Amino acid sequence: MPPKLRDVAERAGVSVKTVSNVVNGYVHVKDATRDRVQRAIDELGYRPNLTARSLRSGRSGVLALAVPELDVPYFAELARLVVETAADRGYTVVIDQTGGGREQEMVVLKGIRSHFVDGVLFSPLALSAADLRARTDRAPLVLLGERAPRGPDDHVGIDNVRAARDATEHLVAIGCRRIAAIGAQTGGPGATARQRLSGYRASLTEAGLPYDPDLVVPARSFHRADGFAAMAALLALPDPPDGVFCFNDPLALGALRCLATRGIRVPQDVAVVGFDDAEDGRYSTPSLSTIAPDKPTIATTAVDFLLARIDGTAPTGPRRTTAPHTLVPRESTDR
Amino acid sequence: MPPKLRDVAERAGVSVKTVSNVVNGYVHVKDATRDRVQRAIDELGYRPNLTARSLRSGRSGVLALAVPELDVPYFAELARLVVETAADRGYTVVIDQTGGGREQEMVVLKGIRSHFVDGVLFSPLALSAADLRARTDRAPLVLLGERAPRGPDDHVGIDNVRAARDATEHLVAIGCRRIAAIGAQTGGPGATARQRLSGYRASLTEAGLPYDPDLVVPARSFHRADGFAAMAALLALPDPPDGVFCFNDPLALGALRCLATRGIRVPQDVAVVGFDDAEDGRYSTPSLSTIAPDKPTIATTAVDFLLARIDGTAPTGPRRTTAPHTLVPRESTDR
Repeated sequence: MPPKLRDVAERAGVSVKTVSNVVNGYVHVKDATRDRVQRAIDELGYRPNLTARSLRSGRSGVLALAVPELDVPYFAELARLVVETAADRGYTVVIDQTGGGREQEMVVLKGIRSHFVDGVLFSPLALSAADLRARTDRAPLVLLGERAPRGPDDHVGIDNVRAARDATEHLVAIGCRRIAAIGAQTGGPGATARQRLSGYRASLTEAGLPYDPDLVVPARSFHRADGFAAMAALLALPDPPDGVFCFNDPLALGALRCLATRGIRVPQDVAVVGFDDAEDGRYSTPSLSTIAPDKPTIATTAVDFLLARIDGTAPTGPRRTTAPHTLVPRESTDR
Repeated sequence: MPPKLRDVAERAGVSVKTVSNVVNGYVHVKDATRDRVQRAIDELGYRPNLTARSLRSGRSGVLALAVPELDVPYFAELARLVVETAADRGYTVVIDQTGGGREQEMVVLKGIRSHFVDGVLFSPLALSAADLRARTDRAPLVLLGERAPRGPDDHVGIDNVRAARDATEHLVAIGCRRIAAIGAQTGGPGATARQRLSGYRASLTEAGLPYDPDLVVPARSFHRADGFAAMAALLALPDPPDGVFCFNDPLALGALRCLATRGIRVPQDVAVVGFDDAEDGRYSTPSLSTIAPDKPTIATTAVDFLLARIDGTAPTGPRRTTAPHTLVPRESTDR
């Protein structure tokens, strides 16, 4: 027989109403009382029936975070930060891995899997602005990563065009003249990849360097294997590049590995810049120069935007934040 | 006004009962009918009220996966596999990041955050067997990773002692005679680390090599920075090691980075073996020899054990599976 609210109240020596206040997270409970109730909850192994509670209050205390892939370090690090920020504010986070395909991302938009959550943090890859505008689910939503200029939703991102220019300019500044880009995505989705490509092109133009489509290599996904294959393709060109801007760190680490297996020196023969500042690139040999988005700011702002929507304290129109980024130069461009 | 069940029924040209059957996942609905209903659900953006449903059926269709850290690649890869396996079986997975501390892990055990889930997959780091035996929460539980010889719960793991012996024997076989271990954990928690240490010691004994406590370096956490620091400490010894067994891949990658910054050749001067077979080590330079647990088997078995508990089709006593592992030799021991 599982313990009930009144068993907790009896053990803590308080009223059932007080236990209920603690369980429901009301703030007007004295700390000492809250501690006593929590101790009784722990000792009895009391488990509040939050399904019933959620029907009453309309709240579950759960947020969903939908990301394309947990084993891409950027998303794993972001997930960690979101979980920690939400926990600080008393929320549990459900992490939903979409795979980055449009079909699965539409499931998130439709809210079919988010029926029990108070709000959704969503980092889409494949969805169009039209998909987002056509959303009918009413759960509060904050978008991460993509720029949705005319979208109806709160949004936290970085300036991908500017960041890609910074990365490419860095390669120009250290003397690269044939600069490749790995990670372009053609066709429907891939707003982030398009923005990074556009920043890369702008930087070439600014430096007076020609744009050579042979130096732009698409990537099906953003893993090391894709970076390795793309680098191998670039090295097979009659006139291979002397610098490479990769659209994320795993692509860059795959490219570095390809260069190492061919005995090509980094940064002397080919310099490499990544994007994300994952832990991986800080410890690779050579260590990886990269664009570091301010991930703690992204996670904190996104959670707080969402909680303000849930609480009804947010302004009416969509809120937008562009989190800062920095270029972190390391050995892969140190020449 | 959000669409209701009867709106879906009307659009699909079926009865409300049929829509309800589809939404509740009953199997005796014809495929063509199910497709028609699903299309109507998609077109209308219908969102089933699963909170009410969960009160009725006692099921939420949600599993929890509690892991210490999402940004340790092993857990990110495992999470990905668990999410994919559960999705195949019609379940959503809530991922809970505990941080690996006893306090947060006790929260998982008590079920306070798992109130809305049908069952829990749990990879604890700090809990003792006594903690697990004292659990009062009744949600079905499957343990991952740790060995709980006398525990009451289903368990899926690998033979950590045997795997650590395999790793150490490999170093012996390529000629190492002073073999260090990075990742020991002293004090209460750390069953996995203790098992790996015990396999390491058994292998030394078997090879007739002395056990030198100076060569066993503890790690506070299992990240690259810890591996880097531990390797630096080993290199400061009067008689540094010629081989290192690291208790996970990030520790090994940190150790490799430390060796690279000192200009020490791997594997000629020091050979290195990791544990986990994360993608990272396949693309590092040198690539990392490692122990590869069969992660797909771990994820699939764990999900299926849990679903059998939830469905009541599992045998009465605890079920145990030891998933296979293999040693994957790469450049870091290729001599």
